[in-house]
Parts: sequence; C-alpha cells; structure tokens
Amino acid sequence: MADMTPQEIDAFLAEVRLCHFATIDPSGHPRVRPMWYVWRDRELWTSTRLHRYTGTDVTAGSSVAISIASEDRPYKAVIIHGRPEILPKTEERLLEISTRYGERMGRAWTAEVMQEDDRVLYRVTPDRIYSWDYAKDD
Amino acid sequence: MADMTPQEIDAFLAEVRLCHFATIDPSGHPRVRPMWYVWRDRELWTSTRLHRYTGTDVTAGSSVAISIASEDRPYKAVIIHGRPEILPKTEERLLEISTRYGERMGRAWTAEVMQEDDRVLYRVTPDRIYSWDYAKDD
Repeated sequence: MADMTPQEIDAFLAEVRLCHFATIDPSGHPRVRPMWYVWRDRELWTSTRLHRYTGTDVTAGSSVAISIASEDRPYKAVIIHGRPEILPKTEERLLEISTRYGERMGRAWTAEVMQEDDRVLYRVTPDRIYSWDYAKDD
Repeated sequence: MADMTPQEIDAFLAEVRLCHFATIDPSGHPRVRPMWYVWRDRELWTSTRLHRYTGTDVTAGSSVAISIASEDRPYKAVIIHGRPEILPKTEERLLEISTRYGERMGRAWTAEVMQEDDRVLYRVTPDRIYSWDYAKDD
C-alpha cells in the first residue's frame, strides 16, 4: 500500500465522512467516538462539550489520534496524531463543520449547540499524518 | 438519542463496516486504525500482526476501544471497550472475518496472511458497550 500525497489527503478529507476520535481517559484506557469534522488549511476542526466523554480527556491533557477511512474499495485511510487546541465556539465554524453533513440538519444542530455553555471547538494541527491508498497498489 | 437493544446491536454489527480500533502506545499516546471485524456470539473478532502498530500495544497490555458507526443518517454507532485475548490464527476464522468484505478479496487476503508468522486473532469480549440510535429520537 502506498501513502497519499498532501494534495490527495486534502481531497480525501474534503469528502463527507465521520472521523473516529481517540483519546486516553484519566484512568489510562483508550476511548474512541465518531465525530463530525472539517479539514481546513491542513488542520482538523471538530467540536464537543468540555464536560462530556472525550472532552474531559482532552482537558486533562490527552493527545488524540483520529481515523478517517473509506468503507468501500479501494480502501483509503488517513490517521492524524496531534494535540487539540481548545477554542471558544463560533457559529461560523460550527456551521462549516456541521453543514457538510446536510444543510438543514447542520443549521438545526448549530442553533442548538450554540446554547451549550461548555461547547467548544477543537483545532488539531497534525504532529503526524499516516495515509494509505490501496488503489495505488498493483 | 437512545440506546440500542442487544438484538439491535447484533443486527447493526452484522452489517458490513470497518471498525476503528483504538489502543494506547507504550509512550502513553492513543492510536487508532480501521480494521475488518466479525461479531459472533457477542464477541468481536479481528486480526492483526503482533509486531506491528496496534499489535505491539495489545501485547504490552493496552485495553482497547472500538468504534463502529454508520456514515448515513439516521446515525447509529456502537462503541466497545474490552481487552483482547490473543489467539493463534485459524483459516476458518480469518475467512469469516475477511469474506464479509468480499468473497474473492477475502480469500486472497486469507491465503496471504496465513503465511505471516506473527499473524494472530483477537477475541474481544466486551467489558462495556455504548450504543446510539438517532433514528429512535422524536
């Protein structure tokens, strides 16, 4: 299997898929959950609530590993390692993330989560990117 | 969002999707990768090589978190926490895992990996299962 080029990674991550977001919980066990994301300027943006689930892990200092894969052949996958920067939410960025998955649903979701006190944005600048493109194999 | 019943979890995990398999590496960082799996008798079976990537984490004692999610609405997701039992590979179980994803590809893959000395099976008996079915929401 072959790596993707940075341009191919950009194109793959622009497609609409969930990412699977892994952290380490305070007791030292892994956690992982599916999340919406948007990839902009080689940074991955996603959103969560600080006091729930993986949010508490990131606040406690966990780095993250994020997996995005095509379900259909030829398989492609991108895995990103990094440490999220926790930023205040903005309606603009939440819409950018959510409306990728459907305009109407994204707008409804954004209106709802803008009311959540502990809703934040994560900006993940990759420390390391792994990629596979099985279509490149002979 | 509502939980799934055990029967609904069985039906969901019988559908053909990748699982995203998260571990903790020896330096204490999370790792995650897409993998094939099969769900049998409420245990998740998957396969890897012991000396590569997440295989080394499991050997070193990492527990695992596994995420499986539908890409299409209404979203469903199942997350399994557990500790894999490492078992010798069998052709029968490797075929059971791999041919879910395509008969011909699965048979070719199984023939190939049967030759790998460090190829093993993981049996994950869930310590905990989380599930979401957004279709159950009103």
